[in-house]
Amino acid sequence: MNKYSAGIVGFRGYSGMELVRLLSAHPRIRPVLLEHRSDSEDRPLPRNHKGPARIPCTADAVRQEKLDLVLLATPADVSMDLAPRMIAAGTRVVDLSGAFRLRTPAEHERWYKEPHTASGLLEEAVYGLPEFYRDRIPAARLVANPGCYPTAANLAVRPLVRSGRLDMAAGVVCDAKSGVSGAGRKPSLKTSFCEVTGNFSCYSILDHRHVPEVLINSGVAEEAFTFTAHLIPVHRGILETIYFRMPGLDSAAAVLSLYERDYAAEPFVRLYDPGRVPDLASVNGTNFCDIGVRYDPATGRGVVVSVIDNLVKGAAGQAVQNANLLLGLPETEGLL
Amino acid sequence: MNKYSAGIVGFRGYSGMELVRLLSAHPRIRPVLLEHRSDSEDRPLPRNHKGPARIPCTADAVRQEKLDLVLLATPADVSMDLAPRMIAAGTRVVDLSGAFRLRTPAEHERWYKEPHTASGLLEEAVYGLPEFYRDRIPAARLVANPGCYPTAANLAVRPLVRSGRLDMAAGVVCDAKSGVSGAGRKPSLKTSFCEVTGNFSCYSILDHRHVPEVLINSGVAEEAFTFTAHLIPVHRGILETIYFRMPGLDSAAAVLSLYERDYAAEPFVRLYDPGRVPDLASVNGTNFCDIGVRYDPATGRGVVVSVIDNLVKGAAGQAVQNANLLLGLPETEGLL
Amino acid sequence: MNKYSAGIVGFRGYSGMELVRLLSAHPRIRPVLLEHRSDSEDRPLPRNHKGPARIPCTADAVRQEKLDLVLLATPADVSMDLAPRMIAAGTRVVDLSGAFRLRTPAEHERWYKEPHTASGLLEEAVYGLPEFYRDRIPAARLVANPGCYPTAANLAVRPLVRSGRLDMAAGVVCDAKSGVSGAGRKPSLKTSFCEVTGNFSCYSILDHRHVPEVLINSGVAEEAFTFTAHLIPVHRGILETIYFRMPGLDSAAAVLSLYERDYAAEPFVRLYDPGRVPDLASVNGTNFCDIGVRYDPATGRGVVVSVIDNLVKGAAGQAVQNANLLLGLPETEGLL
Amino acid sequence: MNKYSAGIVGFRGYSGMELVRLLSAHPRIRPVLLEHRSDSEDRPLPRNHKGPARIPCTADAVRQEKLDLVLLATPADVSMDLAPRMIAAGTRVVDLSGAFRLRTPAEHERWYKEPHTASGLLEEAVYGLPEFYRDRIPAARLVANPGCYPTAANLAVRPLVRSGRLDMAAGVVCDAKSGVSGAGRKPSLKTSFCEVTGNFSCYSILDHRHVPEVLINSGVAEEAFTFTAHLIPVHRGILETIYFRMPGLDSAAAVLSLYERDYAAEPFVRLYDPGRVPDLASVNGTNFCDIGVRYDPATGRGVVVSVIDNLVKGAAGQAVQNANLLLGLPETEGLL
Repeated sequence: MNKYSAGIVGFRGYSGMELVRLLSAHPRIRPVLLEHRSDSEDRPLPRNHKGPARIPCTADAVRQEKLDLVLLATPADVSMDLAPRMIAAGTRVVDLSGAFRLRTPAEHERWYKEPHTASGLLEEAVYGLPEFYRDRIPAARLVANPGCYPTAANLAVRPLVRSGRLDMAAGVVCDAKSGVSGAGRKPSLKTSFCEVTGNFSCYSILDHRHVPEVLINSGVAEEAFTFTAHLIPVHRGILETIYFRMPGLDSAAAVLSLYERDYAAEPFVRLYDPGRVPDLASVNGTNFCDIGVRYDPATGRGVVVSVIDNLVKGAAGQAVQNANLLLGLPETEGLL
Repeated sequence: MNKYSAGIVGFRGYSGMELVRLLSAHPRIRPVLLEHRSDSEDRPLPRNHKGPARIPCTADAVRQEKLDLVLLATPADVSMDLAPRMIAAGTRVVDLSGAFRLRTPAEHERWYKEPHTASGLLEEAVYGLPEFYRDRIPAARLVANPGCYPTAANLAVRPLVRSGRLDMAAGVVCDAKSGVSGAGRKPSLKTSFCEVTGNFSCYSILDHRHVPEVLINSGVAEEAFTFTAHLIPVHRGILETIYFRMPGLDSAAAVLSLYERDYAAEPFVRLYDPGRVPDLASVNGTNFCDIGVRYDPATGRGVVVSVIDNLVKGAAGQAVQNANLLLGLPETEGLL
Repeated sequence: MNKYSAGIVGFRGYSGMELVRLLSAHPRIRPVLLEHRSDSEDRPLPRNHKGPARIPCTADAVRQEKLDLVLLATPADVSMDLAPRMIAAGTRVVDLSGAFRLRTPAEHERWYKEPHTASGLLEEAVYGLPEFYRDRIPAARLVANPGCYPTAANLAVRPLVRSGRLDMAAGVVCDAKSGVSGAGRKPSLKTSFCEVTGNFSCYSILDHRHVPEVLINSGVAEEAFTFTAHLIPVHRGILETIYFRMPGLDSAAAVLSLYERDYAAEPFVRLYDPGRVPDLASVNGTNFCDIGVRYDPATGRGVVVSVIDNLVKGAAGQAVQNANLLLGLPETEGLL
Repeated sequence: MNKYSAGIVGFRGYSGMELVRLLSAHPRIRPVLLEHRSDSEDRPLPRNHKGPARIPCTADAVRQEKLDLVLLATPADVSMDLAPRMIAAGTRVVDLSGAFRLRTPAEHERWYKEPHTASGLLEEAVYGLPEFYRDRIPAARLVANPGCYPTAANLAVRPLVRSGRLDMAAGVVCDAKSGVSGAGRKPSLKTSFCEVTGNFSCYSILDHRHVPEVLINSGVAEEAFTFTAHLIPVHRGILETIYFRMPGLDSAAAVLSLYERDYAAEPFVRLYDPGRVPDLASVNGTNFCDIGVRYDPATGRGVVVSVIDNLVKGAAGQAVQNANLLLGLPETEGLL
C-alpha cells in the first residue's frame, strides 16, 4: 500500500520531534523533514541511524517531492510566512502554531499583540479539533491545530456550556498546569533546569493568548471565564482543574452524563467513574484526553479534571489526527 | 544567656527534621529529641556528628529534663495521646498535627472521619496562626499549629473577606498545589519516586480535611468556598492560586491595599508589586508567606497567588514562631 | 494469524507493567495476566478500559488456558517457587528475577545470601542474553532473563576481554548508575520521592549481587573487576561508565572495531562514532543497548559508555526478545 | 564590631547568588554588589526587599567604597580582565573561575584551549584549597578558588597518594557526577529542563579542564589518573566515586586512617564509619566535604566516595573560607 508523504518543518523542536516519532511508526504516512533555519541542535545519534529523508523547505522542493501535506511545527511568525507559500505550492497545511486559530486579524492582534501577516487565510482556516469540527476538516486547505491548553479546556468545558445549566454568576475557572516542553526547545532562563526543578510557578494570569480559543470553541462567555497557566517541573503533560457551579444535580454521575452524551463514540476522549480523576501518567505518550468529575450536590459546585499529553493530543498527535482526516484515512490510524 | 529547651517528638519525620534544623540554629531555644515509636529510619551520619540530646518520650523524662515546651510533629492520633500527658507533666505543647485545630468533637469527626480522643483540650487550644491570633497564643497551654494549606489560604483569603466586597455568588476557588513532603516520611506507593516524578495529580477534591480551618479562620462561607489539592513533583513548597470576584475596583493595586492594611507590619508576610507573583523558589527554606495579585477591572475577577514553604511557614517554622510567642521571645527569633 | 499466549506474573510491578505494554502491542503474542499475591496497587483506569484477560496464577489455570509460556516478573523467592510448578504444568518460563542466573547453589548462596530452593533447575536454565546465547535459548524450558546492570555491562565488557589486549593489572572498573524503577514498585524509604529527588547516592559498593553475572558471561576475571551501583533521580535508564587500559591502540576507532566485529549484525546493539557517547535519552523506551567509546593513545586508557532502558533491554524487552526466540518468531518482533 | 566589605561580581549567577546568601548572613563581612555586564536576569522580589548595596564594577568605585576584597564569580575571560584592575585598585581578589588555577601560561593554554591574557598574575596566585594551602593564603593578593570537581577529588585523592602504597599500575579512576548548576546560569540547550530531566549523561571524558588541578595538588601522576564527568538531573551537589588499588591493607578502617591522619582537625572534612558513604543530601547547602571508604582486602581494591555541594564547598563557601583567611577571621566564620 502506497504511503502518503507529509513534510515536517521544525522537526528539531519538541512538537516536531514528536511528529517524526509518530509518523515514523504510521502505517500510511511517511515523514519528510523540511530543513528550515532553526535555533535548536540535533542530538547525537548512533552511527547506523537512518532517519526520514531531508529536503529543503522550499515551494520547489515541496512540489518536486509531491508532498501530500505539510505540518508546520514552527513559531507563529514563521507559520504566517510559510503557510501561504506551501498552499501556493499545491500542498495542504496543518499548522501547529497560534497563527490561524482565531477568526479575525483584530482578534489575533488583541491577544497576540502583533499584526497578522497572512490574514487572507484566516477565514478559510479550519480549527483542527476533530471532536468538534470533524465534518469540516477533510476539505480544508489549512488546518489550525489547536493550542495545548485549549484542547484540554474545550473538551472539558463545552459539555457544561451546552447543558444550559451552568451558573454563569459563579463563572468557570480553569486552573491549568503544563509541563515545560510546552514552552518549546529554544533555550531560555525560564526553562533552564535549575530555575524549574524544585520550583512551581504561575504565569499569564488572566491574559493567556490561548483564552480566545476556549471562548470561541466551547461557547463559554468571556466575562464568565477565568484562566491561569502554571509551569510543572515535568517534561510533558497538561492537567486542568476546572471549577463550575451547576445547581440541581444529584451526583457526579449526572455531570458525567453530559460528557457521555457528547463523547460516547469518541476514540480519544476517555471518562472516569464518578469521583475518580486521571493524572498526567494516565495519558503520557498517548493521544487521549482523559476526563474525571467531582460534584457536591449540597452546594452545586463541581470540579472537572482534564488531562492530555501536551505534545501528543496537545500538538503532534492531534496534528496526525487532522492529517488522517485530510487524507481520508481512519482518524485513529497510527495513534493507538 | 540561658536557653529554653524544647522537646521534639517525631524528629525523624520531615516536619520534625525541620524543627531540629531550625532549633539547632536558634539563639534562645535548645532542641531535645524525644524518642517515640516511629516508622522512619535515620540517615547515615558522619562519625563525629553531634546532634541534640535524646531522652525517652515520657512524662517523667519531660519533668526531669524541665522542658519548657514540647513540639509534637506526630500523626493526629499520637498527638491526641501525647498532648494531655505532656500538659499534665507540666509543660506546654505546640502540636503540628490536625488534632486540635477544629472547635468541637463533632466538627473534628465530620472532617477527620474519626472520633476525637482528647476532646477535653479542644476548647482551650489556640489556633497558632500568629498573624491572626498573636494576642492569645502567649498564654496558651496548647497551641494547634495550623495546617500547611490553611496557612497560605487563610493569609490570602481573610483580607478579601474582610473587605466586604467579595461577590459571594462567584465564590472563592482555592486551587492548591503542594510538594510531596506534605504527605509525611512514611513510605507509600503514592509518594514513591517513580509514581511521582514526571507526574502531577489532583486529590481530595472538594473534601480536604484542611477546608474547615480556612472557613473558621478566614471567615469565608462554606457554600462559597471550593478547595482542591494537587501533588507537585518537588520536595517542598505550596502554591495556591485563589480566584475571586470583587467588582468595582480599578486595579490590582486596589486589591493589594487590602493586604497592605492587614500585613504592613507583619514580619513574615511579603507582598509583590501589582501584577507580579511569587513562586516556590521565592520562599523555599524560609518562614515567609509571599502574596501577589492580578485583577481585571473589566470583569471584576481577580487572582491571588499565595506561596509558603510547607515545612517552614506551613509547619516547623510556624511552630518556632509560636514557641517564641509562648516563651516571651521576639517572634522572629531564629527565623530570619 | 493465531497469537501465542504468554502469562505474566507480577504485572503490577514496573517490569510487569512494561511486559503488559510491550505484549499488548505485539503482533504475535497475547498477554494473559496471572493474579498472584502482590503488595502493589492498581492505578485508576478509564471506565471503558479493556486490559488483557486475568486468570489465577495456578498450574491448573495455566494448563487450561494452554499458555505457551509464562513470564515471571517476581522476586527471586517467588520465582523459585513458581518456576518448577509452571514447568511441571507444561509451559516454558522466562524468569526476570535473579533466581536462575548463576550456575550452582553455592554460587547463588554466596551472592544472594540465601539458599537456593529450586536448585534442580539451575543446570538447565539458559542465560537469556540473546547476543551471547542465541543458539541455546530456543530449546530451553527455563530462560533466566539477565539482570539490568549485567546486560549493559556484559555487552560492553566482553569484546574488550575477547581482544586479549586488556591490561589486567589496570583492571576493569564499571561505575554503574540506574534509575529508581530498578528497585521495584514496593514502597520503601530508599525509593520515596523526597529521599531521592535532588539527591544522588552510591550503594552495593564492591559487593553487588549482579557482579557474578558479569564475571561468568563476559569472561572478565573477578580480581580484575570492580563494580559500584548508584541511584539516579530518574524513573528509568542505566548508564555505565567502564574504565579499562588497552595499550598500543592508536585511536578510539580501534577500540570500536572490537565492538563492530561482535555486534555488526545485532539488531539491538548500536554504536556511536569514535568519541561520541549515548545518554539515557538515547535509549529511553527502547530495547537498544547503545555503546560509545573514548580512548587516549598516550596512556592506553579508555572509557566505554553503555546505556540501556533498565525496564526494556534490562528487563521486559529482553524477556520479549527471549520469548520470540522460544516461540520461533523473529527476534525483533514487537520490539522495534 | 565593624564589618569588612567584599565586592561580588557576577552576583546573578549561581555561585554569585550563593555568595550573596552566605555573606548576607556573615557576622563580619558585608557584601557589596558590583554591577557588570551580564546575561542573566533578576528574579522577581517582594516589594520591601532590601538587598546589599550596588555599585558599578569599576576600579574607582572599588577604591571609593574601600572594599577589603573582591570576589569574582565570573567566566575566566572576565576574571583575567578584572583581576589585574582590581588588584591595581588596591583590593585583594578571590577568583572563582579557572583563570588562575594553573601554574604557567602553557599549562593553561593546553587545558583551556585559549591563551592566558593576564599571565603576569599566574605565579603569585595562591590555590585556595585551605586544607592544603592554609599557610599561604592569608598573605595572597590573588586567591584562585578551586574548581568544584577538583575540590572533592583533591581532598579524596591526596591522602591515598601520600601513603605511598597506591598500585600505580592500577591507576586512580575518578568517576565524577555533578548537578546542573555547575554549568552556570546562562541558558543553553544542554542545561534546558526538558533535555536534563529524566536524563543522565557523560561529558568531557578523559579531557576535562579540571584534571590538571587534581594532578598538581593531589600529586597523582597524569598517566595514572582517569577522570570523567557526568550530569545529574539535580540543581546542586557533586559525588565522586574514586577507584584505586592499595594492596596489603586489612580493612576499610586502614584506608580511613589515612584520612584521619590528614583531616582529624579539619572543620570542613567529615569522615564516615568504614563501609558507610555519604550522598548529596549529606552536604547539600553546607561547606562540608564528606568522605566514606569501602575496601576489599582480598583484591586490594578500594572505593572512596567524596561529596560536596558544588555551589558551597565547590565555589562560594570555599571562597568565603578563603575570604576569612585573607581578612584574619576564624576560617569557619559564617560557614557553620
